[in-house]
Amino acid sequence: MLFKNITILDEDFIPRENMYVGIKGEIIDYIGNVEPEIDYGESYDGQGKLLMSGFYNAHAHTPMTLLRGYGENLSLQDWLTKRIFPFENKLNGDSVYAGMLLGIAESLRFGIVSSTDMYYFCDDMAKAVLESGVKNNLSRGVVNFTEDDIDLLPGFIETKHLFENYHNEGNGRLKVDVSLHAEYTSNPKTAEHLAKYAVQTGANIHVHVSETQFEHNECKKKYGMTPVQYLNNYGIFDTKATAAHCVWLENEDFDILADKGVTVASCPVSNLKLASGVCNVPLLLSKGVNVTIGTDSVSSNNSLNMIEEMKFFTVVNKGKQLDPTLITPVDALRAATIAGAKSQGREDCGKLAIGFKADLIVLDLSNANMYPVHNMVTNIVYSASGSDILLTMVDGKVLYKNGEYLTIDLEKAIYNAEKETKRILGELK
Amino acid sequence: MLFKNITILDEDFIPRENMYVGIKGEIIDYIGNVEPEIDYGESYDGQGKLLMSGFYNAHAHTPMTLLRGYGENLSLQDWLTKRIFPFENKLNGDSVYAGMLLGIAESLRFGIVSSTDMYYFCDDMAKAVLESGVKNNLSRGVVNFTEDDIDLLPGFIETKHLFENYHNEGNGRLKVDVSLHAEYTSNPKTAEHLAKYAVQTGANIHVHVSETQFEHNECKKKYGMTPVQYLNNYGIFDTKATAAHCVWLENEDFDILADKGVTVASCPVSNLKLASGVCNVPLLLSKGVNVTIGTDSVSSNNSLNMIEEMKFFTVVNKGKQLDPTLITPVDALRAATIAGAKSQGREDCGKLAIGFKADLIVLDLSNANMYPVHNMVTNIVYSASGSDILLTMVDGKVLYKNGEYLTIDLEKAIYNAEKETKRILGELK
Repeated sequence: MLFKNITILDEDFIPRENMYVGIKGEIIDYIGNVEPEIDYGESYDGQGKLLMSGFYNAHAHTPMTLLRGYGENLSLQDWLTKRIFPFENKLNGDSVYAGMLLGIAESLRFGIVSSTDMYYFCDDMAKAVLESGVKNNLSRGVVNFTEDDIDLLPGFIETKHLFENYHNEGNGRLKVDVSLHAEYTSNPKTAEHLAKYAVQTGANIHVHVSETQFEHNECKKKYGMTPVQYLNNYGIFDTKATAAHCVWLENEDFDILADKGVTVASCPVSNLKLASGVCNVPLLLSKGVNVTIGTDSVSSNNSLNMIEEMKFFTVVNKGKQLDPTLITPVDALRAATIAGAKSQGREDCGKLAIGFKADLIVLDLSNANMYPVHNMVTNIVYSASGSDILLTMVDGKVLYKNGEYLTIDLEKAIYNAEKETKRILGELK
Repeated sequence: MLFKNITILDEDFIPRENMYVGIKGEIIDYIGNVEPEIDYGESYDGQGKLLMSGFYNAHAHTPMTLLRGYGENLSLQDWLTKRIFPFENKLNGDSVYAGMLLGIAESLRFGIVSSTDMYYFCDDMAKAVLESGVKNNLSRGVVNFTEDDIDLLPGFIETKHLFENYHNEGNGRLKVDVSLHAEYTSNPKTAEHLAKYAVQTGANIHVHVSETQFEHNECKKKYGMTPVQYLNNYGIFDTKATAAHCVWLENEDFDILADKGVTVASCPVSNLKLASGVCNVPLLLSKGVNVTIGTDSVSSNNSLNMIEEMKFFTVVNKGKQLDPTLITPVDALRAATIAGAKSQGREDCGKLAIGFKADLIVLDLSNANMYPVHNMVTNIVYSASGSDILLTMVDGKVLYKNGEYLTIDLEKAIYNAEKETKRILGELK
């Protein structure tokens, strides 16, 4: 494919007008201001459009689309025990597949090319990833309140099964991570066991950390350590790890995350909506932490709109810390692209640069809200609307274009998601 | 026009499927679940779509589109003195007209049917309002640091001129309000004079209040009163008034606003982005204050995306006060529709109800992000994307449909806005 006469946001987030970008197989093969001599096949008219890296969603539970808007305006405890847990208890492989596929369709509409996902019925999630053509770092969230042999724990058995059967499938699109769900849903033995397995296999780790003040303080009471200290103590950060939320970090925590090269996935909308608080992204950035952006699930967001999420990411800390100089739109774009790709172990992704994987999106620049252009990056992060994304390409293949999906039957996906939702609501009555 | 087989959000924010809505002239004439016998002319197929009230933007400076992204990541002082004021100093009638028309186009794209605007070169703003078919509560922000006769003050002269020449023009679409810019940009004599004029004429008042902590505290030091107490003391709340921002209110302030029936226009995005803080909307609502939503200007937002603004409005207080039960999606919709219309003195607007003005929008429900539907209101406020609005109608006339404008030449509007921006930037060099 050849993008012609298109504005690009280059690898340094600088806009360059009237460019040509040639895609060969899954790779960005040409970037220049003259038409290349090589024939890249189908051409795409870029007039009034912007080509940039797609988004890497660093913390998600994609199949939870089925719970969108189910359980609102409730305390965290009521939300979990009266809504989320009973509903989730009725999920099966079919419903997780249906929710996953609907969530992938939504992700593509909002320019997300890859998600770091934690859930269960992961075979069904893998199927949806492989069929639809997206990328995913998939993990089974391991929860354990027992002292049983970890090797016999269903979550760990599924993790191993996933890793052995799916890791790097789909030409590397699907990666399998190891998930300790969180400190408060497990114990030291489980943490240690999973950490060892991840180090041995080279898998990434994905874990929830200090999302709520209650969780953070309970950990300190129980272990005399913050969740970050606890996880570090049991080896969870000895491999490439993504720590989601990190709202209630304390001073030493920031340094541990920086020293151990842990990625933080900040989830600003979910953290506000569930009333968890605000992650101190400016301090993390100043310590050199790889900060990324996660949507969390649509049951707490309630969308996978990464442009909106970048706006929240940028302004929430300005507003909380009463300092408008904190976090720039470039910080947000970096977090949503290259930092996200890096967190997923996709070092050849997340940049519009020659030799990188062609995980790209096209944004419509032709509408009233995108003019004038004092600063293109600012306009993308603050002024664009999520559904102004016209095209999403993964590994050089167009998966979404002008509202149409090339690998997903949207009508069927919606039908199945609604059918499974109705079944569950019926059983809960 | 007859909307057929459409889902509506009724006046109580309840979704009703497969409805018929007939528009006669500028009025909603029929709502029912059977096709009416009267011929309403052109029919609109509502399959997969939602019809609801349009949005009333309760605090805006619409012509500031020209400054979108001009001046970012700066302290408030630098932003104002190094960017906003020098740029504004170069504005003229042509540039204000160009910025206003571009802003109206953006407003329509995001479902805004009417804005409460404060700026200058208001004749040119009025022209754009009357030509484009939108509604507007227009005011000239009055600033005065002198002890001169207020009757000789250019801002007051322009206010009177506007009121006498434009109030209720365009069949009532254009209303002229009286603006005291703020306590900190004027003096008691000016406040009193404007208040008297507004009471005499029955005009609404529009004023900035307690936007920043600095402004709030300086007022207390100077007058021994909070800005709300000060404005109340000089009669500003003796007519229908809209107080924008209200971030730093103190206890008695809430009661004064409630007692005097003052509308509060909360501007969550702008307040976060400029690092002003968060308006305590839950407390205002509990006191019975008419709370509305404003985008403020795109120089501090940087869009006029009311769906996005509603999401911020809802979640920001949950996150700040660490209470997820605060502010519901219905609160947000009420603020963005009926409360906004009421604040503008448009008692026959802001509701999808028979006899009300047909200020309506159509939202696309057919995309992945709008399924499943546990709760339609939640999906609209949290899951929709701003540009999923397919149609915007004001007083029964379609002004925007599927990306096309029926009263605005968008290409020309963009061209003129860019031309004026370039002229100003050239002069500033």
